[in-house]
Amino acid sequence: MKKANNSKLKIIPLGGLEQIGMNITAFEYEDSIIVVDCGLSFPEDDMLGIDLVIPDITYLKENRDKVKGFIITHGHEDHIGALPYVLKELPAPIYATKLTIGIIDHKLKEHNILKQIKRKVVKHGQSINLGCFRIEFIKTNHSIADASALAIYSPVGIVVHTGDFKVDYTPVFGDAIDLQRFGEIGKKGVLALMCDSTNAERPGFTMSEKTVGKAFDNIFAEHKNTRIIIATFASNVDRVQQIINSAYRFDRKVVVEGRSMVNIINIATELGYIQIPDKTLIDIEQLKNYPDEKTVLITTGSQGESMAALSRMALDIHKKVSIKPGDTVIFSSNPIPGNEKAVSKVINELSMKGAEVIFQDAHVSGHACREEIKLIYSLVRPKYSIPIHGEYKHRIAQKRVVEDLGIEKENVFILASGDVFELDENQAKVTGKVKNGAILVDGLGVGDVGNIVLRDRQHLAEDGIMIVVLTLERGSNQVLAGPDIVSRGFVYVREAEGLMEEAKNVLESSLDRCLEQGVSDWGRIKGTVKDSLSEFIWKKTKRRPMILPIIMEV
Amino acid sequence: MKKANNSKLKIIPLGGLEQIGMNITAFEYEDSIIVVDCGLSFPEDDMLGIDLVIPDITYLKENRDKVKGFIITHGHEDHIGALPYVLKELPAPIYATKLTIGIIDHKLKEHNILKQIKRKVVKHGQSINLGCFRIEFIKTNHSIADASALAIYSPVGIVVHTGDFKVDYTPVFGDAIDLQRFGEIGKKGVLALMCDSTNAERPGFTMSEKTVGKAFDNIFAEHKNTRIIIATFASNVDRVQQIINSAYRFDRKVVVEGRSMVNIINIATELGYIQIPDKTLIDIEQLKNYPDEKTVLITTGSQGESMAALSRMALDIHKKVSIKPGDTVIFSSNPIPGNEKAVSKVINELSMKGAEVIFQDAHVSGHACREEIKLIYSLVRPKYSIPIHGEYKHRIAQKRVVEDLGIEKENVFILASGDVFELDENQAKVTGKVKNGAILVDGLGVGDVGNIVLRDRQHLAEDGIMIVVLTLERGSNQVLAGPDIVSRGFVYVREAEGLMEEAKNVLESSLDRCLEQGVSDWGRIKGTVKDSLSEFIWKKTKRRPMILPIIMEV
Repeated sequence: MKKANNSKLKIIPLGGLEQIGMNITAFEYEDSIIVVDCGLSFPEDDMLGIDLVIPDITYLKENRDKVKGFIITHGHEDHIGALPYVLKELPAPIYATKLTIGIIDHKLKEHNILKQIKRKVVKHGQSINLGCFRIEFIKTNHSIADASALAIYSPVGIVVHTGDFKVDYTPVFGDAIDLQRFGEIGKKGVLALMCDSTNAERPGFTMSEKTVGKAFDNIFAEHKNTRIIIATFASNVDRVQQIINSAYRFDRKVVVEGRSMVNIINIATELGYIQIPDKTLIDIEQLKNYPDEKTVLITTGSQGESMAALSRMALDIHKKVSIKPGDTVIFSSNPIPGNEKAVSKVINELSMKGAEVIFQDAHVSGHACREEIKLIYSLVRPKYSIPIHGEYKHRIAQKRVVEDLGIEKENVFILASGDVFELDENQAKVTGKVKNGAILVDGLGVGDVGNIVLRDRQHLAEDGIMIVVLTLERGSNQVLAGPDIVSRGFVYVREAEGLMEEAKNVLESSLDRCLEQGVSDWGRIKGTVKDSLSEFIWKKTKRRPMILPIIMEV
Repeated sequence: MKKANNSKLKIIPLGGLEQIGMNITAFEYEDSIIVVDCGLSFPEDDMLGIDLVIPDITYLKENRDKVKGFIITHGHEDHIGALPYVLKELPAPIYATKLTIGIIDHKLKEHNILKQIKRKVVKHGQSINLGCFRIEFIKTNHSIADASALAIYSPVGIVVHTGDFKVDYTPVFGDAIDLQRFGEIGKKGVLALMCDSTNAERPGFTMSEKTVGKAFDNIFAEHKNTRIIIATFASNVDRVQQIINSAYRFDRKVVVEGRSMVNIINIATELGYIQIPDKTLIDIEQLKNYPDEKTVLITTGSQGESMAALSRMALDIHKKVSIKPGDTVIFSSNPIPGNEKAVSKVINELSMKGAEVIFQDAHVSGHACREEIKLIYSLVRPKYSIPIHGEYKHRIAQKRVVEDLGIEKENVFILASGDVFELDENQAKVTGKVKNGAILVDGLGVGDVGNIVLRDRQHLAEDGIMIVVLTLERGSNQVLAGPDIVSRGFVYVREAEGLMEEAKNVLESSLDRCLEQGVSDWGRIKGTVKDSLSEFIWKKTKRRPMILPIIMEV
């Protein structure tokens, strides 16, 4: 892997830097491109009706011959969720650890593309060669098992990419993060470190996942006479393992509820990432055969998602479980920013049904806090620092930490999605910009909802719509029928008959004036209708419904 | 105030118990009603297009002859915001402390009803007589000056209502909470205590407002060479006072920006609730005449509100102030639940412009934590406890605190809005329910947007609308024009020409079949149009736009 010329390594993040989610980064050297992660993000509040958001991969499609494969660091949606959409346009092999591939396989099966795509399981410590790159998978810890950091060996030097990580000296399953290997690679000399910034604003160290197990034991010991319901993230297999362990210790049967939870636990069990003692798991149908104090439910809905199992239980619309006074409900999670209110709502509903809700002490983060970030930097000692995975403020917080460690200010790079960041041992800088952005997925439509449609949805959501229909005689432009006004989402018509009547009068007289003046251009007629109605409605209601004139000709 | 018969006191909360906001409670004894507070709440996420929400006062209108007046505990929107709307339907005198009346006056002036409404300023320690009630105003501390608790003397006993409060032994302006008087009244014997629950989940004591002043001094000392911009709640006059004090100490000029901030500071200055040293305040136009490090901006927008001054500065659309690299921006606030993401967005924007954002240490809550709640209960020692001001979970948290203090479980009442809670020295219970609820205000419309309109707006927001227009010949039902499809917020038509073409074909053939069969009922024709289009669109896109068939007849 000697460098034969002046070529540089290009690092091109195509997403993930402006928000949490949609992580995808291309590494390019001459005719080789590898892509690290391929995640989705969830829609912002103003993306009305949108289901999910995926990255624009125009740049990869334009260079499809160079693309050697996707390297996936771990199995969270913000790192794998765009794969089915992206692979349909750019089929390429996938490389990841066993559990990650298991979760991806399930996803590809759902999208009916499993057979077309080559997947290869890589073990921690193993390397793969793709084009001019060698990629080594390094064991890390995170809130999902089998997470990896990557050492990417390129002709101009080594780039270490942490993926999402924390340092857990006492993990629930498998080994602790391979700090020795980080040190060993660091000793070789690392060109650049791309490090998780999510918790860079938080001082100290993230607690071990194992502390949550202790918290469960304490809660179970204090609640021996009630049913226990625990909501957590479906993908946190270690968390589920600990709940099962506590349940087993306290002689309770376990029910798993919620589709995504059941899926992941099936995959994890099949692949050996979770050990369930015999006869501990029971079907939800069997629940009635056990006394409450002998059962635990593990469920989705820890983020207050309205359709998740816990929310349905709270609202008494779950088919099989109702909340009873005395139930103990544990949120083993923190609200993801934006979900605080939805979570509060579910807590209120649960409390009203008489449940005791426990919201503290049964969760730890999966991301490295400041001291862990310092540890990784101190092991890797890169020349350049590229904070990743986080909003701008998180990455800036990492930048501050890194500068404290003595890395020079000008060697820390706060990139933006689409930046072409070129580097070698002598210099590093942004040299260009490629197409990038967010593609909106709504139902089956990928990219067919853009700004105009979103703006219309916002307008409709705000004040509704008034439709004015009108049939004109061909040639003479005489009004044969209408104008009729139909409205939706504007005002409850029965409450506002007078207003609608008046509106119709305003409309008719402005239309009359317009036609009397011999205006025959439909555009101008529609404009007149729109302006006069809009002005009237604003004066009367201080609202601006969308006004849509439709003219038919007979 | 002797009790002559078996009449009981009725406490009827008409809002404020299911959410933060919309506080309003009626106290009724025989032919006297007094109303404590009259607040608005801000719309929930699913109340699309709604500006604000006010309580349903049907019960008060039905008993309008009994209503003696409104007693207002303090000048926050969730306690005064519904007054202009409610007073229009039920004009009655208002009683409150000086600053509170000042803020209400400004509001009534904006709504053009100042002259019709009698307002009376009451001092702390004073009482007023209304019908069979005597109401004493007791000094408390809160995040707005001049907050009051109330001792309501009724023929069956004393009810103490804390309003929103905290215990601040070292307030910035005026006196500390009048704990002696709480004790004195408690000694007389108190029937019921209605106590603020907002922070009942939090252990310990809320810090004094004065600690924030020290934080400002520290931040000012550490940022001597940059401009300082501080966002806080417009109504927190003491906070503004402390910023002005720090500015004065560090020889900086102060600019106040944001309409609501300017209004409140004007009122507070006029009434003597804020002292501004000479020549400290400058106009925003003068800002350019001073070096950055000699200025401080106090601004609205601490909740990430998109139209507030700080947000506009962050997005570079503020007419007079742009964020510059090196600016220090302090959030002297906590995000109100639901605003977390909006606040993060503004912080990211500010960081991207190069500002240093300080988000910690420059804020304290205005509500009592658990130890303060215990203190008030221990002074007042009521027979009955009615936790108020908080979501269900907060009130349940207070209930737990109160039970720990030895008040019997069955004497703690978690009421719901609309409950008629009857009490006297012998017993207390909910005996009935009155009409209550949320009236939505949208523009000038009060109550004309209800569930149907909201559901339509949600439907429109989710997937947009497809309108099918059709002109039929009167009598023959022959299609003279159309069917034409017009859509908004569904899909960008230029991207989906094929889909719309196909949809039209589907529509035409189902319509043909329907008319060939001699169907002449418009309802059935519309049903056919709707079903066939809806099925086609769902199959093709997995979306469910609103489908609105409109038939005209010529």
